[in-house]
Amino acid sequence: MRTRAAVALQAGKPLEIMEVNLEGPKAGEVMVEIRATGICHTDDFTRSGADPEGIFPSILGHEGAGVVVEVGPGVTSVKPGDHVIPLYTPECRQCASCLSGKTNLCTAIRATQGQGLMPDGTTRFSMLDGTPIMHYMGCSTFSNYTVLPEIAVAKVREDAPFDKICYIGCGVTTGIGAVINTAKVEIGAKAVVFGLGGIGLNVIQGLRLAGADMIIGVDLNPEKKPMAEHFGMTHFINPKECENVVQEIINLTRTPFDQIGGADYTFDCTGNVTVMRQALESAHRGWGQSIVIGVAPAGAEISTRPFQLVTGRVWKGSAFGGARGRTDVPRIVDWYMDGKIEIDPMITHTMPLDDINRGFDLMHSGESIRSVVIY
Amino acid sequence: MRTRAAVALQAGKPLEIMEVNLEGPKAGEVMVEIRATGICHTDDFTRSGADPEGIFPSILGHEGAGVVVEVGPGVTSVKPGDHVIPLYTPECRQCASCLSGKTNLCTAIRATQGQGLMPDGTTRFSMLDGTPIMHYMGCSTFSNYTVLPEIAVAKVREDAPFDKICYIGCGVTTGIGAVINTAKVEIGAKAVVFGLGGIGLNVIQGLRLAGADMIIGVDLNPEKKPMAEHFGMTHFINPKECENVVQEIINLTRTPFDQIGGADYTFDCTGNVTVMRQALESAHRGWGQSIVIGVAPAGAEISTRPFQLVTGRVWKGSAFGGARGRTDVPRIVDWYMDGKIEIDPMITHTMPLDDINRGFDLMHSGESIRSVVIY
Ligand SMILES: [Zn+2]
Ligand SMILES: [Zn+2]
Ligand SMILES: [Zn+2]
Ligand SMILES: [Zn+2]
Repeated sequence: MRTRAAVALQAGKPLEIMEVNLEGPKAGEVMVEIRATGICHTDDFTRSGADPEGIFPSILGHEGAGVVVEVGPGVTSVKPGDHVIPLYTPECRQCASCLSGKTNLCTAIRATQGQGLMPDGTTRFSMLDGTPIMHYMGCSTFSNYTVLPEIAVAKVREDAPFDKICYIGCGVTTGIGAVINTAKVEIGAKAVVFGLGGIGLNVIQGLRLAGADMIIGVDLNPEKKPMAEHFGMTHFINPKECENVVQEIINLTRTPFDQIGGADYTFDCTGNVTVMRQALESAHRGWGQSIVIGVAPAGAEISTRPFQLVTGRVWKGSAFGGARGRTDVPRIVDWYMDGKIEIDPMITHTMPLDDINRGFDLMHSGESIRSVVIY
Repeated sequence: MRTRAAVALQAGKPLEIMEVNLEGPKAGEVMVEIRATGICHTDDFTRSGADPEGIFPSILGHEGAGVVVEVGPGVTSVKPGDHVIPLYTPECRQCASCLSGKTNLCTAIRATQGQGLMPDGTTRFSMLDGTPIMHYMGCSTFSNYTVLPEIAVAKVREDAPFDKICYIGCGVTTGIGAVINTAKVEIGAKAVVFGLGGIGLNVIQGLRLAGADMIIGVDLNPEKKPMAEHFGMTHFINPKECENVVQEIINLTRTPFDQIGGADYTFDCTGNVTVMRQALESAHRGWGQSIVIGVAPAGAEISTRPFQLVTGRVWKGSAFGGARGRTDVPRIVDWYMDGKIEIDPMITHTMPLDDINRGFDLMHSGESIRSVVIY
């Protein structure tokens, strides 16, 4: 069949909207009509050419929601008509990682997914002249129709709006999951969130959900303050306005009983390795945990003195919020529908596929939190 | 009163054995007759001048065992005649750290201890001419008699031999505790121990106690192999004999079911920041934890790509094995007396106080695992 898609033909160029060929689903695969997709920094990281593993031509997009239209042989967990969210972190429930119960990083299809291919080593997309087009993060939601492995779709309730829950396919789950799955924040905790973009806001609402007492946001841009407060931030630090952000956090968290100070949990949502170090070092001596969420530039390294760890700080990371997609994503959709979490204020812009490059412009200018393409 | 002690008069010089003055215990303090003390790398780090926080003149030694001979006003938890192990990490059971239940790093007397002073800001030791001599790590076990805060002694059973259990005051607890308190290793785990000195051997016996399936030791010196095997090492890697120690560990731990490979737990007992990085990177994707135990040179930093954390590895540290001294040290003494752990083969040399500098020589030459001074 043919479908309309925004294709990344070359690194650093705008996406091109065009008709492409899409083969039907093979064994264990499903075809999904994407109804809405968010535009994420990760897409832009690859589009721009900064991603050393980027492959072209490819169809980007990994933050979608849609409806199953066809299933390949052997597919049992979803059927045509089911509403689904594509998962760039699949959940096979059979590999050593899934069965460990200790990680969400399913490895069933990791090798092919990283090469832009379906699990059988081929691609379903091609140009009208037959040139293969690569998949992206196993999702390619910048195409109106796409094919995914069955293990890479989460079945969700049918009354949830596509243009909001698509964001659960990435940022919402990444932020909230980092709090509840990776850090396992407890009621009464003191936490710091570095970077108040979309992920940061979702970490903040995750912290509110977890019952944190103090939610400190750190950002160079004071205009981010009102929205962060809306999601639950209790204190704001602008690093430009203090001498030393680590010391500022220690002062804020210190009490008459606890003269040491430091946060129980800190989250880096910036991707900046200098900030990652500050996040670690502002964690409380003895037990503070720092969670790296942001994606650093290729080759960048984090450092600290080992004394920071020996005196009890823990350095961790989180990918897709530690969430097992097929199991946890439907629950997060429920939380949204039940009003336990908010998504609407973060979807600041919507547009048709034809205008997708405007979504990237809005991201670069800092005007949007999230732009969503509605098909 | 007067006591004989080995005094560190100047950085980089041998210790000098001499008579010194010792004041009796003040409120909340106890005087202990030290019967045996280990000689540790940490003492040598300070003696040599490499420790930027070293103070002279001082009485080093932090790995002792002895008998309470006098208690100051208000002391309730020990009485003259009690057998005790001095604690360089005290346990006040009242500060924010102790009461958190999340760390052993009691902060009740941290500031004065770091300055070589008793909690009231003074020193109990002085030269015969009246010059004050500083305490060391709150212990100063290189003196036949010493004064310690009540919260810095663990009361232990009276049938345990001083010349063996003194080592529980540092290396034994540090190694075993890192396994059971910090890493919380579970039965069946695969673990790697970098550095097969005294701490490494104790990590190994901790892993055996915890029921680990695979205990891989890494050391440049193959002569360490027999003793490490005695304590439970199951596999040995000499980094000189393989191209890439991280890859070697991944290959060793990989199974037909788990093609990813990597250790569930890795422990750095070298203090070398390059090794610390290898330890992190040989931990299993998704859940592997790496525990820094070794003390790095002043100013040295650890680094890695944040991707290592984002893909599920956890970087932690351990000080005094995460053990709460007054609570946990007596249990470890019981384990030794019950034969659950071994200490005797690690005490390779004993000597009187007069020969203490020979203990440092044996450490430098690599001949000893542990030298113990018997008073
Ligand atoms: Zn994303
Ligand atoms: Zn899996
Ligand atoms: Zn305390
Ligand atoms: Zn020691």
